[in-house]
Amino acid sequence: MKGSLIVVSAPSGAGKTTLCNAIVKDFDRIAFSVSYTTRRPREGEIEGVDYYFVDEKRFREMIQREEFAEWAMVHGNLYGTAKKTLNDLMERNIDVLLDIDVQGAKQIKALYPEAVLVFIMPPSFEELKERLFRRGAENLDLRLKRAFEEMREYSFYDYVIINDSLEKAISDLKSIIISERLRSKRFDPEFIDRFYPIV
Amino acid sequence: MKGSLIVVSAPSGAGKTTLCNAIVKDFDRIAFSVSYTTRRPREGEIEGVDYYFVDEKRFREMIQREEFAEWAMVHGNLYGTAKKTLNDLMERNIDVLLDIDVQGAKQIKALYPEAVLVFIMPPSFEELKERLFRRGAENLDLRLKRAFEEMREYSFYDYVIINDSLEKAISDLKSIIISERLRSKRFDPEFIDRFYPIV
Repeated sequence: MKGSLIVVSAPSGAGKTTLCNAIVKDFDRIAFSVSYTTRRPREGEIEGVDYYFVDEKRFREMIQREEFAEWAMVHGNLYGTAKKTLNDLMERNIDVLLDIDVQGAKQIKALYPEAVLVFIMPPSFEELKERLFRRGAENLDLRLKRAFEEMREYSFYDYVIINDSLEKAISDLKSIIISERLRSKRFDPEFIDRFYPIV
Repeated sequence: MKGSLIVVSAPSGAGKTTLCNAIVKDFDRIAFSVSYTTRRPREGEIEGVDYYFVDEKRFREMIQREEFAEWAMVHGNLYGTAKKTLNDLMERNIDVLLDIDVQGAKQIKALYPEAVLVFIMPPSFEELKERLFRRGAENLDLRLKRAFEEMREYSFYDYVIINDSLEKAISDLKSIIISERLRSKRFDPEFIDRFYPIV
């Protein structure tokens, strides 16, 4: 049996990080994938826990060797998910939670067609605006426009969760993860052999 | 938005009926589909609630007119699910729970490719034997063999639930139903239009 790949995307302000942290904390047999980055570690960040910190030369080598399942440049820094990280976790029957944007989700789906893609929607325009304002986001108009553009890509995803109440969103995401574990392709046929009627 | 079709099959003794009854009782926006049958009503059975009771002539006419989504002969009586019953419920955004055997499930899947098929497994051979024995089943050996044959068809289903604990099985089936409701194809795109940034 193998773990599954759960990709979660959302526009900034939809509450994705809080949701994903709650799932990994509460739930068994699921983990975040640790990314590689060329960004410098921030205060308190731990190598191999928060990120694998590498220099740009090493990162470019990994791109050349096609070691990444997805990668992107964000604010001048490179971020990437190694195929090996994903495969090692899945082989250990651990579901992997991948918190990436729409472009990353598309790269993952191309490489892992069985990945489960979940899009988190903010509950309303007013709520999104307020959340972004509260966290002191700059270029509010630009961010709202970008959120709108990202949300329009929802149909590429398998599931959509409206993050209206955090509790409800957690329970919805858990339902998706549980149902993925119940897929018949994950069922061990040896279970049935033990029913062979030697009566 | 339309309700979904949830087909539940299981070998006799797997605890399917208890499970399905609990789901319909506990859960909102889901109902059993009422079948047509040529069998005579038993004490307390209500027309239109337990079954639509019809004579064989009427049933055969309905077959001729292709009004059934699936039908079967069981112990000399005809049983069938009308397409209209399913469509009416789904149009009202109600999920339909269909408690039918492997052959019926195949007929439904051919007609409704988006139906969600769930197979319920008994927890173990010993437990299945005991459950069948307890309910005074005749031809125990034959029933166990038939259960084995049915279980081998599990891979035709989308999901497999092992009915080890009723509580766990109920929660598993709920997760499947909830995740089906969260599918992006069921998401109303008008939700996004309300985010159009007129800022």
